[in-house]
Amino acid sequence: MPKELIKNIGEKELIRRISKYMPPKQILDDCAFLETNNNDLLINTDVMVENTHFTNQILSPRDLGWKAVVTNLSDLFSSGCQKVLGINIGLILPATTEWEWVKELYEGINEALLEHGGSIMGGDCSSGEARTICISAFGTQGKLKLRRYFCRPNEIIMTTGLHGLSKLGFMLKNQAVEEKSLITPKLRIASEKAFCRPSPNSEVIKQMIRSNINNDSNAIGCTDSSDGLYQALSDLATSSDCTAVIDYLKLPKHDDWPFGEVWDEYYLFGGEDYELIFSLPEKWARQLIKIDKSVKEIGFFREGKSKVELINFPKNIRSPAQIFSHF
Amino acid sequence: MPKELIKNIGEKELIRRISKYMPPKQILDDCAFLETNNNDLLINTDVMVENTHFTNQILSPRDLGWKAVVTNLSDLFSSGCQKVLGINIGLILPATTEWEWVKELYEGINEALLEHGGSIMGGDCSSGEARTICISAFGTQGKLKLRRYFCRPNEIIMTTGLHGLSKLGFMLKNQAVEEKSLITPKLRIASEKAFCRPSPNSEVIKQMIRSNINNDSNAIGCTDSSDGLYQALSDLATSSDCTAVIDYLKLPKHDDWPFGEVWDEYYLFGGEDYELIFSLPEKWARQLIKIDKSVKEIGFFREGKSKVELINFPKNIRSPAQIFSHF
Repeated sequence: MPKELIKNIGEKELIRRISKYMPPKQILDDCAFLETNNNDLLINTDVMVENTHFTNQILSPRDLGWKAVVTNLSDLFSSGCQKVLGINIGLILPATTEWEWVKELYEGINEALLEHGGSIMGGDCSSGEARTICISAFGTQGKLKLRRYFCRPNEIIMTTGLHGLSKLGFMLKNQAVEEKSLITPKLRIASEKAFCRPSPNSEVIKQMIRSNINNDSNAIGCTDSSDGLYQALSDLATSSDCTAVIDYLKLPKHDDWPFGEVWDEYYLFGGEDYELIFSLPEKWARQLIKIDKSVKEIGFFREGKSKVELINFPKNIRSPAQIFSHF
Repeated sequence: MPKELIKNIGEKELIRRISKYMPPKQILDDCAFLETNNNDLLINTDVMVENTHFTNQILSPRDLGWKAVVTNLSDLFSSGCQKVLGINIGLILPATTEWEWVKELYEGINEALLEHGGSIMGGDCSSGEARTICISAFGTQGKLKLRRYFCRPNEIIMTTGLHGLSKLGFMLKNQAVEEKSLITPKLRIASEKAFCRPSPNSEVIKQMIRSNINNDSNAIGCTDSSDGLYQALSDLATSSDCTAVIDYLKLPKHDDWPFGEVWDEYYLFGGEDYELIFSLPEKWARQLIKIDKSVKEIGFFREGKSKVELINFPKNIRSPAQIFSHF
């Protein structure tokens, strides 16, 4: 069967087909209309560009759709989103793109929305040389205001999960891992899943609320580790004007995670991890760790310069300047 | 002085510089936070892609910034936006882009926001081969619900202004106008302004509210003519399930607009006009036209098939199928 290219479908028909992935009640109009029900909103915009963030070889359109949504929602969760309302999609495609590719992209998008809530509300599409997807996501601001600048000295720093896996998954997909013999099948599967189907933790916010038995302030220092664990800690330290002290011996790792410099660097600087990195007063932290097994203590904040201090780390870790950059 | 390229500035410094164009109170965090004050929202996303929507040769970065904002706001206004709240910007640039270009883009963006309200709330930037700007704009839903599907038979169809100018401006910029001798200096200036610095009408909504002396329903049929006058009328007719009857003799034209087929086609199908096209019950329409001189009657809706009927038109207008398409 000949492949159906979008240039042969035409813009009108393309939009008609895409609109099938929107809820029937969402009538196509000039704008999306959003009922706020007296909630304040969190809004996040992220772009994913072919050859910068992905290639067709290493990410299927279905995984790309999933990932474009959840990486965006990760920022909503890291600000204390209670309910995901929806997304607008700006889509740029070469005219020679197959309709099948677009279809799978939207299926991946809707799989992610089915998991986390919300629906496609609107957007725009255009032709262009590089496949590009720009999503703006909307959610309600919940009771806890999670912000980068609310960390305080003496608070316990926690993570909702492991780091380095996504980077390893990316390297495996690119066949760029030198010490392949070190990768167990279990680690390979976990890494490729972390890269292709990242799964941000939206449940921990509810556990944070439940575990606040002392009725501490709802203003909590938090960010996500989309640009890597080290960058997340550095952003918190900078915005909150204190020192993050991270204990190597406390970092939770995948059971099969190998030892060595390269692996520590993947862990710290790999990026695209989408875990929440946050701090809480000690009693609250202990209570949360007790009721939510995904949450692990990795260090604490102390008064001092805006920086990250690594303790118990093996020597030879390269300079922290080697952080994730899209330019 | 050597030109400063963004690849030499680095991502962090680029974001720091861009953040200077945001209000000081808008602290950089994972998300933008939007207080809704119990208003429902209108949200619109538009993409502009180099070589599809613009080239560096025909649109300066300052004009591009202005245009990227106002074309987006035009959709908010055409849905009944009362107050523009802000925008999120997804920006994609080649690493060889000069900082000066980015600076002028943001100056143009802020000029448009100064004119219409709102501010830059957040966004994302990334490298990529084609300069691309994807804006999501947010505004409050005002009292009048303007939607494509609220037009009714016997209502008067109106426009807030002239058509065809933007297309002519584009053709002039591309040196693609064959009958140059027909273009007066006044028409050239108006056309180039319409193309480079379009100016959607945000005031007419207030006049609509003022002129509703019979207390008619607040549900009004409306769209903007971003894809051309004909397409706007066709969208209203389709969404509202009635026939738009347009009288050639009533169409308001620029004083120096030449006669002839080509010019009629620019007028109907040119696109990027950003006027509001809407319909009102006759008494309301007469009252509005009396108090707002920018508003002109161009026809009426009648019961019948979803289509546009052109009356008093010169023969030889090409088929309406020749509408604006980005693919």
